[in-house]
Amino acid sequence: MATGGTIAGVEFLGIAKPVRIGDNNIRIRHIFLLESYPMNADQLIMDIASRSRLAARTLAASDGGTRAAAIDAMASAIRQAEAAILTANALDLDAGAAAGLSGAMLDRLKLDSARVEAMAAALEQIAAQDDPIGATISSYTRDDGLVIEQRRVGIGVIGIIFESRPNVTADAAGLCLKSGNACILRGGKEALHSNLAIAAAVRTGVVAAGLPEDCVTMIETTDREMVGAMARAEGGIDVIIPRGGEGLIRAVAAAATIPVIKHYNGICHVYIHAAADADMAREIILNAKAQRPGVCNAAETLLVDAARAELLPELATALGEAGVTLRCCEKTLAVLSAAGISGDTIQPATAEDWATEYLNLTLSVKLVDDLAAAVEHIATYASGHTEAIVTADADAANAFVTAVDSASVMVNASTRFADGGEYGLGAEIGISTDKLHARGPVGALGLTTYKWVVTGTGHVRG
Amino acid sequence: MATGGTIAGVEFLGIAKPVRIGDNNIRIRHIFLLESYPMNADQLIMDIASRSRLAARTLAASDGGTRAAAIDAMASAIRQAEAAILTANALDLDAGAAAGLSGAMLDRLKLDSARVEAMAAALEQIAAQDDPIGATISSYTRDDGLVIEQRRVGIGVIGIIFESRPNVTADAAGLCLKSGNACILRGGKEALHSNLAIAAAVRTGVVAAGLPEDCVTMIETTDREMVGAMARAEGGIDVIIPRGGEGLIRAVAAAATIPVIKHYNGICHVYIHAAADADMAREIILNAKAQRPGVCNAAETLLVDAARAELLPELATALGEAGVTLRCCEKTLAVLSAAGISGDTIQPATAEDWATEYLNLTLSVKLVDDLAAAVEHIATYASGHTEAIVTADADAANAFVTAVDSASVMVNASTRFADGGEYGLGAEIGISTDKLHARGPVGALGLTTYKWVVTGTGHVRG
Repeated sequence: MATGGTIAGVEFLGIAKPVRIGDNNIRIRHIFLLESYPMNADQLIMDIASRSRLAARTLAASDGGTRAAAIDAMASAIRQAEAAILTANALDLDAGAAAGLSGAMLDRLKLDSARVEAMAAALEQIAAQDDPIGATISSYTRDDGLVIEQRRVGIGVIGIIFESRPNVTADAAGLCLKSGNACILRGGKEALHSNLAIAAAVRTGVVAAGLPEDCVTMIETTDREMVGAMARAEGGIDVIIPRGGEGLIRAVAAAATIPVIKHYNGICHVYIHAAADADMAREIILNAKAQRPGVCNAAETLLVDAARAELLPELATALGEAGVTLRCCEKTLAVLSAAGISGDTIQPATAEDWATEYLNLTLSVKLVDDLAAAVEHIATYASGHTEAIVTADADAANAFVTAVDSASVMVNASTRFADGGEYGLGAEIGISTDKLHARGPVGALGLTTYKWVVTGTGHVRG
Repeated sequence: MATGGTIAGVEFLGIAKPVRIGDNNIRIRHIFLLESYPMNADQLIMDIASRSRLAARTLAASDGGTRAAAIDAMASAIRQAEAAILTANALDLDAGAAAGLSGAMLDRLKLDSARVEAMAAALEQIAAQDDPIGATISSYTRDDGLVIEQRRVGIGVIGIIFESRPNVTADAAGLCLKSGNACILRGGKEALHSNLAIAAAVRTGVVAAGLPEDCVTMIETTDREMVGAMARAEGGIDVIIPRGGEGLIRAVAAAATIPVIKHYNGICHVYIHAAADADMAREIILNAKAQRPGVCNAAETLLVDAARAELLPELATALGEAGVTLRCCEKTLAVLSAAGISGDTIQPATAEDWATEYLNLTLSVKLVDDLAAAVEHIATYASGHTEAIVTADADAANAFVTAVDSASVMVNASTRFADGGEYGLGAEIGISTDKLHARGPVGALGLTTYKWVVTGTGHVRG
């Protein structure tokens, strides 16, 4: 790949040559910086972060119009760089095919004209969102005249570690910029060329709007030492957001001494209460399971109240027609068997099933005694993502909403609505299954914090 | 100490005998539980946390009036147990004196009638605060009729690790209960008897109000293995709050795989801008440094704009009269020397001084070229706690507020106001120098999160 000049047609200032660090086979590629780094991974991250910090300080003093213009410019630059991005992507696809990546992995990696346009359009949507920065969250004037305010500000420097979907490069950069943050991105090695081409375009847009290029930095490594270095970059990086498989996320959480916004998995439940409308129950579980089974807000377990066991045959038939395989508790199997429903797609559940995020057309099914038993099952097995109740009884709905300790609790609605776009948050950086700072879908607002601004006229404390 | 019956006069159900775990000399004392624990530290914490989780679920369904009544009952129980608490405290003081604790440490440990009353009164203040739970933070109805709400709820189970101040037991229990959380407390071993006596009283109050005793659990160990176990209790404890020395806090942050709310230190700055009123500048730095030098919101560094170097002699004299020793940059020393000011309390600063939290009557002093230089010094050395500017120039004040990345930024007011009570938050669990979730003083509201509640009429996603 070129150093200086253009990268597959995108103008840029330079890309550091991959540099080996120590004996650890770490290659570092800091785009637009030509220096090589005779440093270890921790020093290198702190060095990059110091540049990001300066950029963040400029961002803190910028206005929302400038940030929105920069994001629009990022979108334009991505459109202009389409050919370059697709050329870079072809390199990744070739390498991925040669490395034996699965068809699903290659599909996640693949860009085409429509996907590049979708990246640009997503950036324009982010640009058009309300400015999350600068608002006064609270303000009061004390009797002695001292004014105490909370003002919303960017967090500062955000580290994002992600696996092979290259569109995350643009999305993450746009959301961070929108919320007044510099970002340090570390993508998966399978998408190296694609990510660099997208980041190059993004930085072109940032600079075109008069903001520092270090608002967005992409680093690349061939092993995970940089991940650990990012996770312990106290004072350098303010929060780390890992996006990818559970192994990556657990590794980041274990290594981290800085705050992490994370999402382990989505073991989502639909509970059909005694007072459920039968048609509504069927439509909701069909949608929650089968409309898009590979995503985290799809349902994995159906809990049916014992008072409505008679619904099981109809539900099983409808789910079977949608291609869903059922893993059933013994009582459910007995009810289905009595109704003459059996076959390859009706299977007994093992203990493991209740704790499994299938991400495919499999659904575990359990008959539960009552609402309390449903809540207890959810407390034991749910991942804190999204659970739903179907009921016509408002008291039951309230009891469920109060007792279920998940980021999203749905009443008579599909779990599939748990999404930043559906909630009106705009684009999302992820869905948090943690409870602190940001819970559930995290949009630009979730990438902000506040500062206390106290204004006096010479006030001293007595 | 007794098992079952009374502990120094306070009624209780039982205290587990200290149990040795493995070869690690860990003693576990789970008050009010008589079982011994043939478990390792991780299992033991998860076992305790499972009881706390059940208590938290009851709390989530409780109303604010019940929680307030429980906190008032905790206050009453502490007053009734005064003699018992003082007897227990005397045991700690004797042990502390025998172990050679410093006078300052013994003073922090010591309780007397007034301090017990202060604990009870602080609880009553917490009880009287607005209920932080249950409010709707945001709500909107989509065009398709789906209602998307954010409701404020307790976090769940909060772990608090603290050093020897025993009043933290009552404060932390009160704030956690107020905010709908069960808490697991791990106090310092120097205050073992005091903490147990206070926790016993607190639990009596909780039960008197009809809430589960496991809302408040005190554990005690003789080494730090339990600290690590608490910090990695994923699914058991939702957030860990270490309160104490930097060593403890760093150890918790390094071990933690769960979120941490932490406060490293307070290296707070006062910057006297070119447009500062001289009298105001003097009163603010005197207050910020000398009114209570041992606390985290006291100033440690004075930055004086070069345009106002003429103020240095007057400031040095006033600070000297207040007993403050100055560690000065070379330029400051030159100005003071030219004005005939010298002596034991005027000393040259070393590089280390700028990064030192003195917590005593020492102040580092630096002449800076301008506002940008002040901001740069603060960016390099401040701990993100609280910085102040003294200026009559509103533009300069705004520039400082925007550029300084600290939890609290003061304009023409002492750094000493950075305090939950002063900000109107009520009692505080601590001051966060992190930026995520809670920043600056953390009161009951900082111990809450939200859940998304989505209400439909059979809505499914298209």
